Amino acid sequence: MKKLELAEIAALLPQKDRILIVIHKSPDGDAIGCGYGLCMALRSLGKQANVLCGDPIPPIYSYLTDLVPPTDMTPEYVVSVDLGDTKLLSGEAAAYKDRIDLCLDHHYSNSGFAAEGYVDGSAASCAEILKRLLDLMPVTITPDIANAVFTGVCTDTGCFRFSSVTAETHRIAAELIDLGADSAMICRLMFDCKSRARVELERMIYEGLTYYAGGQIAVVTITKQMLADSGATPFDTDGIAALARQIEGVRLGVTITEKDGGEFRFSVRSAGDIDASAICACFGGGGHRGAAGCSMEGTLEDVRQRMAEACAKALGVSL
Amino acid sequence: MKKLELAEIAALLPQKDRILIVIHKSPDGDAIGCGYGLCMALRSLGKQANVLCGDPIPPIYSYLTDLVPPTDMTPEYVVSVDLGDTKLLSGEAAAYKDRIDLCLDHHYSNSGFAAEGYVDGSAASCAEILKRLLDLMPVTITPDIANAVFTGVCTDTGCFRFSSVTAETHRIAAELIDLGADSAMICRLMFDCKSRARVELERMIYEGLTYYAGGQIAVVTITKQMLADSGATPFDTDGIAALARQIEGVRLGVTITEKDGGEFRFSVRSAGDIDASAICACFGGGGHRGAAGCSMEGTLEDVRQRMAEACAKALGVSL
Repeated sequence: MKKLELAEIAALLPQKDRILIVIHKSPDGDAIGCGYGLCMALRSLGKQANVLCGDPIPPIYSYLTDLVPPTDMTPEYVVSVDLGDTKLLSGEAAAYKDRIDLCLDHHYSNSGFAAEGYVDGSAASCAEILKRLLDLMPVTITPDIANAVFTGVCTDTGCFRFSSVTAETHRIAAELIDLGADSAMICRLMFDCKSRARVELERMIYEGLTYYAGGQIAVVTITKQMLADSGATPFDTDGIAALARQIEGVRLGVTITEKDGGEFRFSVRSAGDIDASAICACFGGGGHRGAAGCSMEGTLEDVRQRMAEACAKALGVSL
Repeated sequence: MKKLELAEIAALLPQKDRILIVIHKSPDGDAIGCGYGLCMALRSLGKQANVLCGDPIPPIYSYLTDLVPPTDMTPEYVVSVDLGDTKLLSGEAAAYKDRIDLCLDHHYSNSGFAAEGYVDGSAASCAEILKRLLDLMPVTITPDIANAVFTGVCTDTGCFRFSSVTAETHRIAAELIDLGADSAMICRLMFDCKSRARVELERMIYEGLTYYAGGQIAVVTITKQMLADSGATPFDTDGIAALARQIEGVRLGVTITEKDGGEFRFSVRSAGDIDASAICACFGGGGHRGAAGCSMEGTLEDVRQRMAEACAKALGVSL
């Protein structure tokens, strides 16, 4: 992938037309915000542009998607936003995996799949990069575009909570509010709204919460039965893996999700003092120091016990 | 109360010594952040200064309180921060209610109890005002002072979520991070940590959650028995009144808390489209359009039913 400066991209994009913007499967606020924000900006320059995602966009984002109905268009130039690897393209979007012309991304691990691109792994969201790009383009950032970019900035930082947040993140948020972004509306939709199914699932999860090692390990279990009984969809389980670690005194938070065929998927979170990826590596998995995952087969009781023992060993305590 | 400009206060404070800073009972992050932030700033100018709160400061704020151990001092000048009314002073702090020399506050409803003061009801937190004041004083904002001010900025805005947040709020957050505030640490402590008692109380609350009017009204009940069984302290119930309204489709969220002697306290929240204060006024209470409260006596079933009926009437629907 040829590395471009943002100024080069700002000069190049206005020369293109029929631009397709592809985003990753299970799209989050950053992918959606960047996709629709860039699409609106390009259309404001008189370009034809569409956003393509292989998965449905959650209805909560209708304040963006409603503004950008897809048009009938044969793509001439393909841009990916917030995409670290083409393996994350699904459905119709996957057909473009070998013909991405330009990549805008903030994943250190970006696999360099595009012809040209700009990757800044230090940016807390791809939306921060998009904001810098739009500032260099002959685009008027309307309140709608500001809403799209703000959506990416706030969702990928857990509403300005994560350690990836910098002074720059807040400066960009301030500028977007000055440009008309409705921060309160977006934050309410993204962070202050739970479905009834989610509430019911949380109740079940709290009911089945298991502590080990004097409360230093907490294990949350989500069975297929719980998902069926609560009516929770995949959208409703977003962020659940963080619940166990949030409990006071818990150093390792484990979430077990039952899959088909006797398989259980594990998500392990630590405050960073314990290496979660080393624990998951014992079971053939991996990830980051603070968040890692693996899979095991067996009965729930058995796999839970094996994970609890591995966690206790990592903490140097007994169960 | 004589209104002063911040520049006048910035010139006046360095002439004072033995300064006591009083904060309200059940202190929140804004009161604590402003109290300890101002105290550190005054001490850095060679002043004697203490923070006084009639209630215990929750241990979660030890990253601030540990830095400012109280000294033996006879107060000469008394400052209140984030205090809207002297009725909110408890215990030892209440002794100073008639001798507050200077007030720094952001409550529109400030009762003007001090000799002099500065009140800006448009500021999302008192900490925003304190930041502006410190910028005018010959004070170096150290990382510790920045942490204190950031604590107020983020807690009083629900981590930048509330409608009170402005571009200025984010600009101040950016400046504080530049000055060394550890935004990730503070946000994790303030927003990403639940006690085991809180988790248990939430489980009980979800179990007893009642919907009316096809899910447009949700009622949460907290009995004395639930508080006893979960081991929840008053710190653990913070923010619970917001839970019911957060559920998708809910237009009125009601929280009923059992008090002594057959009394039940009600908190009613709306998205602002329905006037919660008008509902509470039916039962002798009041508040704001989006958040109001009242009390009733009777059996739980009875008072819950009466409130549900009043809510249904306000929505123009049947139960």
